[in-house]
Amino acid sequence: MTRFSIQRIQQARDHISPVFMGSPQYECEPLSELLGCRLTLKVETINPIRCFKGRGTELAVAKLIADGHSSAVCASAGNLGQALAYSGRARSLPTTVVASAAASAIKLDRIRGLGAEVKLVDGDIEVARATASEIARTESSALIEDSENLQTCEGAATIGVELAEQSEPFDTILIALGGGAMATGVGYAMKELSPKTKVVCVQPAGAPAMTLSWRAKDVIRTDSIDTIADGVAGRCPIPEVLADLLEVADDALLVEEVSIKRGMRAIHEHGGLITEPSAALGVAALLENRERFAGQRVASIICGSNVDLAQFQQWIDSIEDETR
Amino acid sequence: MTRFSIQRIQQARDHISPVFMGSPQYECEPLSELLGCRLTLKVETINPIRCFKGRGTELAVAKLIADGHSSAVCASAGNLGQALAYSGRARSLPTTVVASAAASAIKLDRIRGLGAEVKLVDGDIEVARATASEIARTESSALIEDSENLQTCEGAATIGVELAEQSEPFDTILIALGGGAMATGVGYAMKELSPKTKVVCVQPAGAPAMTLSWRAKDVIRTDSIDTIADGVAGRCPIPEVLADLLEVADDALLVEEVSIKRGMRAIHEHGGLITEPSAALGVAALLENRERFAGQRVASIICGSNVDLAQFQQWIDSIEDETR
Repeated sequence: MTRFSIQRIQQARDHISPVFMGSPQYECEPLSELLGCRLTLKVETINPIRCFKGRGTELAVAKLIADGHSSAVCASAGNLGQALAYSGRARSLPTTVVASAAASAIKLDRIRGLGAEVKLVDGDIEVARATASEIARTESSALIEDSENLQTCEGAATIGVELAEQSEPFDTILIALGGGAMATGVGYAMKELSPKTKVVCVQPAGAPAMTLSWRAKDVIRTDSIDTIADGVAGRCPIPEVLADLLEVADDALLVEEVSIKRGMRAIHEHGGLITEPSAALGVAALLENRERFAGQRVASIICGSNVDLAQFQQWIDSIEDETR
Repeated sequence: MTRFSIQRIQQARDHISPVFMGSPQYECEPLSELLGCRLTLKVETINPIRCFKGRGTELAVAKLIADGHSSAVCASAGNLGQALAYSGRARSLPTTVVASAAASAIKLDRIRGLGAEVKLVDGDIEVARATASEIARTESSALIEDSENLQTCEGAATIGVELAEQSEPFDTILIALGGGAMATGVGYAMKELSPKTKVVCVQPAGAPAMTLSWRAKDVIRTDSIDTIADGVAGRCPIPEVLADLLEVADDALLVEEVSIKRGMRAIHEHGGLITEPSAALGVAALLENRERFAGQRVASIICGSNVDLAQFQQWIDSIEDETR
């Protein structure tokens, strides 16, 4: 028994701006050839905030307003912050985003550009989460906790609804795993609408908390984060989200940093797309597990492209050095 | 009186694969800020052939089969060839693509990958067009002549139908102009469905035949082509297409090569998108005509991303040298 309702998810689609819905999905043949499977990309980067999270914040902000709230706050490495700022601005709800001072400059600039107040904290995303909670308490602002907030998960789940509309079911869907909003939401939708499809989560080995928790069937916190994939970097899984993940995920894989960079390079060279590291986790898993997925019909969600271009180039140029 | 029918265009949408339809359209705020207008991007690059031309070839191949043809041939710098190959393969219609030996290697590889036979000729796209006509005659293959073939224009017109569905009409739509399929098709749809929107075509100064013809209201052929925008490089406008363009275009602008490169760079840096040169013509026009479009609500179609990445990088890196 998860927190989800497929009826609510299907209705959710009506409450999300069309700029986030019906994103492109197509088999990318050059990538398929490279990876030895039939890979469908679901591209969530061609919208005003260049990531999938608008689907969730559209729902979350609509509910906050219906519930009488007058402001919202979240902690974010950047993407949730942009999404909340966008949806808040569209509905005239003031928003505050708490971010690590180490977060991507391009993401922080965009959050400000979308009208949110940005507060920087020293420390990682977990420190930002604690600060956001504090602000919510002291300023009676509504806290949007990514993944814990059900709308963030159900918004992401609409991606699964769209993928399940393909006539031929996928053998496997690879979903980036961080806090778990996308993995539980999309995983749930696939289980409901395309039950033959295996739901496989992918997380960086350098930020494995949720994967370790899924494997142990219990919350496991980690002490540090060591990954370029800031969008999926958490240390403290939320118990309710883990409970959902245990119901919907068939497997959870960890991938190396160099594979993430290789994935970004492959998607760039063969798909013509710029991705942030978390968006390349699925392709990274295909690169590391070629035999396992050989010949399968696989879907992967290109979930964000908020990346500094110079940093992106440096990452994909650094692969040879790391593997020498 | 054009060759178009709005009813036929609206029905056409049902005959085109969903991978080409409903492409993303959204205001790209970072580009808007840079350019001093409100710029909506219509992104036609996130599909199996990374360009808009699948909309037209889906219609064209369906009609060929309905009319009893058993093979098709076209001349193409790459994008029409990929599109025809894709649509032909999907419907089991053998296809041949005649291309200049100087065409982009990445495009030619993809055409072969999609199952078409490729024939290379020495010379530019006009030489390829003559060879394709010859093949059509001698091998009784159906010739798909871009722009002259009405389906290629009406397929492109479905982009205009989608853009016209925005609640607020655009002040201006900027459309890349080459042979004229996209400019006449999208222009016609906008005139029918969003009559307040100015239709402004944009062509490279190095391949100005259709623009000069539009201005002279008569076909003007040019002797040579000097542009990196291979997708819009023609020397011999087709009279019927010019006639349509005279009815639907409000203006036709020529832009410099360096502006095209600047446009590609701006779309890359501020929009996170890779484009081929012809896809940057609209932004190039905004860069060259800042005053004219200041504050306007403008749409530009990002019509293709089939470009060699090393070449792309070289182009955007070369701007400073050229403007020193």
